[in-house]
Amino acid sequence: MLAGKFIVFEGIDGAGKTTQMELLAGFFKRKGMPVLCTREPGGTRIGGRLRNLLLDPACHDINHRTEAILYAADRAQHVYEIIRPALDRGITVLCDRFVYSTLAYQGWGRGMDMALLLQLNELATGGLLPDAVVLLDIAVPEGMRRVMGQRSPDRLEGEKHVFFRRVREGYLDQAARRPDIFQVIRGDGTVEEVHRKIIEALGEL
Amino acid sequence: MLAGKFIVFEGIDGAGKTTQMELLAGFFKRKGMPVLCTREPGGTRIGGRLRNLLLDPACHDINHRTEAILYAADRAQHVYEIIRPALDRGITVLCDRFVYSTLAYQGWGRGMDMALLLQLNELATGGLLPDAVVLLDIAVPEGMRRVMGQRSPDRLEGEKHVFFRRVREGYLDQAARRPDIFQVIRGDGTVEEVHRKIIEALGEL
Repeated sequence: MLAGKFIVFEGIDGAGKTTQMELLAGFFKRKGMPVLCTREPGGTRIGGRLRNLLLDPACHDINHRTEAILYAADRAQHVYEIIRPALDRGITVLCDRFVYSTLAYQGWGRGMDMALLLQLNELATGGLLPDAVVLLDIAVPEGMRRVMGQRSPDRLEGEKHVFFRRVREGYLDQAARRPDIFQVIRGDGTVEEVHRKIIEALGEL
Repeated sequence: MLAGKFIVFEGIDGAGKTTQMELLAGFFKRKGMPVLCTREPGGTRIGGRLRNLLLDPACHDINHRTEAILYAADRAQHVYEIIRPALDRGITVLCDRFVYSTLAYQGWGRGMDMALLLQLNELATGGLLPDAVVLLDIAVPEGMRRVMGQRSPDRLEGEKHVFFRRVREGYLDQAARRPDIFQVIRGDGTVEEVHRKIIEALGEL
């Protein structure tokens, strides 16, 4: 009996996930709802150490399979330590990335075996599904421009545009398969416009 | 077409795995065979960082599921980066712990779902099996005595005797199921006696 709502933000780098998640959290808080914002990878202490390892440019020799398994480990700890306990206490959880990132980046992006990734994620989450996934959809060059403008790219961000195009396709494909939980929101308006669209899309929730 | 032999050492803490592995490596080297000694967790650079995390007493809040997935990540990188390339080059690989440790410690020891652990390990190894598993079998109080005499116990070693009894049972059960690859060697003789028994047992190989 989960009382809190579980809302996931997805999208390619630069789509505005973090900004929009924080704005939505503020909106809920003003309505008096208890909200927890978290992210993957790195939502826990152990996850933070895994995040450092995964995003470290020195770890370029990490095998794709190892990488997928490490994301699953981070997710297992995150679900167990943060997400489930919060939902059980009636807190709404907003999460920056979840299983859909793994499928989009490792599956569509790197061409890893999708069945293997699904199996890994089933193990990691114990079957937990979000009530809604906000997919912020943005053109790849626009996403890259936003990311590069802010800071130097990390290992994943430094990879090629063509990779991000496959990732974006992967997200849209997942959204098409699960219209019951996915809300696809165009991320290229102003921050305030996108925020209003998200509020509208989540209206029923 | 793997040319090198893959030999795994297993057993509870204090059984003498490391000592015996090094002696066997010396034996092979004197015969002019190329040998690589490695271990889990921690056989790679990335694995070393995971090993520190897994054995750190400060990480007592690590979920059992997360732990099992992290061991699988370490193993995936180890197989990909170290074991397979060495075997492909005709090098005999001696490995301190492999999938049988996961099944014994996490499965029998902690009571984790065995099917889940088998699935994870299949993902991690890509189906690679050793040519031989040397199981050094020793009574639990003797193993504990040896470990405690040397240094202060790490997080896993500090757990109770009853846990190690289940782990030992788990090893013996696995050996009984795979007599084609397991060699069960009593580890309570002198170092030299145990070494001779191992050489004898691996004779056909």
